[in-house]
Amino acid sequence: MSQLPDNNNWFTEVHTADGSAFSFKLTEKGKLHEEQTPFQKIEIYDTETFGKLMVIDGYVMLTTRDNFLYHEMMSHPALFTHPNPERVLIIGGGDCGTLREVLRHPGVKLAQQVDIDEGVTRASEKYFPELCESNDDSRAELHFVDGLKWVQEAAPGSYDLIIVDSTDPVGPAEGLFSEPFFRDCHNCLAENGMVVQQSESPLYHLPLIKDMYTAMGSAGFVGMQTLPFPQPVYPSGWWSCTMAFKDTALKNVDSKDIASREFREQDSENRPFETLYYTTAIHRGTLDTPPFMKKVLAGLK
Amino acid sequence: MSQLPDNNNWFTEVHTADGSAFSFKLTEKGKLHEEQTPFQKIEIYDTETFGKLMVIDGYVMLTTRDNFLYHEMMSHPALFTHPNPERVLIIGGGDCGTLREVLRHPGVKLAQQVDIDEGVTRASEKYFPELCESNDDSRAELHFVDGLKWVQEAAPGSYDLIIVDSTDPVGPAEGLFSEPFFRDCHNCLAENGMVVQQSESPLYHLPLIKDMYTAMGSAGFVGMQTLPFPQPVYPSGWWSCTMAFKDTALKNVDSKDIASREFREQDSENRPFETLYYTTAIHRGTLDTPPFMKKVLAGLK
Repeated sequence: MSQLPDNNNWFTEVHTADGSAFSFKLTEKGKLHEEQTPFQKIEIYDTETFGKLMVIDGYVMLTTRDNFLYHEMMSHPALFTHPNPERVLIIGGGDCGTLREVLRHPGVKLAQQVDIDEGVTRASEKYFPELCESNDDSRAELHFVDGLKWVQEAAPGSYDLIIVDSTDPVGPAEGLFSEPFFRDCHNCLAENGMVVQQSESPLYHLPLIKDMYTAMGSAGFVGMQTLPFPQPVYPSGWWSCTMAFKDTALKNVDSKDIASREFREQDSENRPFETLYYTTAIHRGTLDTPPFMKKVLAGLK
Repeated sequence: MSQLPDNNNWFTEVHTADGSAFSFKLTEKGKLHEEQTPFQKIEIYDTETFGKLMVIDGYVMLTTRDNFLYHEMMSHPALFTHPNPERVLIIGGGDCGTLREVLRHPGVKLAQQVDIDEGVTRASEKYFPELCESNDDSRAELHFVDGLKWVQEAAPGSYDLIIVDSTDPVGPAEGLFSEPFFRDCHNCLAENGMVVQQSESPLYHLPLIKDMYTAMGSAGFVGMQTLPFPQPVYPSGWWSCTMAFKDTALKNVDSKDIASREFREQDSENRPFETLYYTTAIHRGTLDTPPFMKKVLAGLK
């Protein structure tokens, strides 16, 4: 039976409920940083082939090498779907990678990042400086408070798009997958508002995605659409985000295809910035849900 | 530093050169089968969440749970690109999963599977019987001989499509990534012929894909197109196949977009069989190469 050749030179995340594990070979430097914040334990490792690795409470958050997949897919599809996203709220996202992608869109006038833990941003500034290069943009605001409370207290109609760039639905992020949170999001979104939420693995976590659809639907959202994308360092190497729409006018039409119909394909094609993974055709491709997922999610959007 | 909690109850494949590893939690049954054939060591494990797992010479080949991704993407895109694929040769593919997908296409008149190791097919019949359900189809032929020799000796113009469903480019499969092999493929393909080859991870193995393009080009192929797809149990959880075209008439036109232009989208849309992952839109989406790959592969097709 094969084992890791030298267990001590590797960082392994065990996905207990999913029966799998992913490991990184570390350099001789090994662990670069460890810190217990008031909220969670942050660790930074130096890997042999993935660059820096950020781990929170034992869960892999991101690496230098492959975070572009996640950050591009958490932002560009939603920003090219809302008709005119000017005011964007990012819940979580303390590493600032999503913020950077959001600010590539010239039409965005305000991008607020609300992460409960300032420690994540400070660690990112030190170990992932490329992700923080837009933190000083005049349109950016960084707030280190509870995102759940933030959306509770936000004025109705404050945002065009809310991006929920959260950790897994355990610990501090648990509430970010529940109906009360989505209800608050719905409330503080403007009329054409959208929410996009990281929604775990299409292979491992379909029941969670199903529950999210139900919670989003109960909160008043329509047209839920899950976009799968590769993310090698997350469980199963395959991840997803789920978009949903506030627009009450859409309730009266077939809400299944809102994400396809509203996709501003021409604007995506003419985007004034470069990407590493995202393209118009790839975006279009992810709007067709693989049949094995469709079966489980049928009738829920 | 996190470790696998009980290293003995897990099967781990270490991707040494890539600095990562993937592990499966096993059931109490653990290893179900082990056999040293004249060519390689075949093992079958019982996993907790992925069903059965086949391992050859320590490399993960397939699991019950997620092989549909690989087998569908190795067959349907190519079969819906060639104008009329009637005679299909599968090199490798001893588990018979690709053969099953190929035979879903009513237009296919002959599907020859040529795998050097009969042991793989016998193990698959026992542990992955669902993949072997079309082995008795009157259009199917199973040959247990060397694929390299088979294409050397095949009559010119024998096939419409050659699917190279090989193991990694080490050991018995090494020659399947080289120019002489592609030259033999080119020779035994008919005028509109195509080859499709599994081409490793888009994240880890771009240099290999680049070398493949060069080898395929030297052998006379044009229009090389790499289609990425999720494959959780392979290194990085992200895999690919690469299609290439024999048609000499295509050499005179812009060969960059052959795979897009030749895609029989309507036939794909009207396919008379169900899939779990493959859809027309997903196929279309994979034809747009992510920019980070395009940069490396530019000018090579």
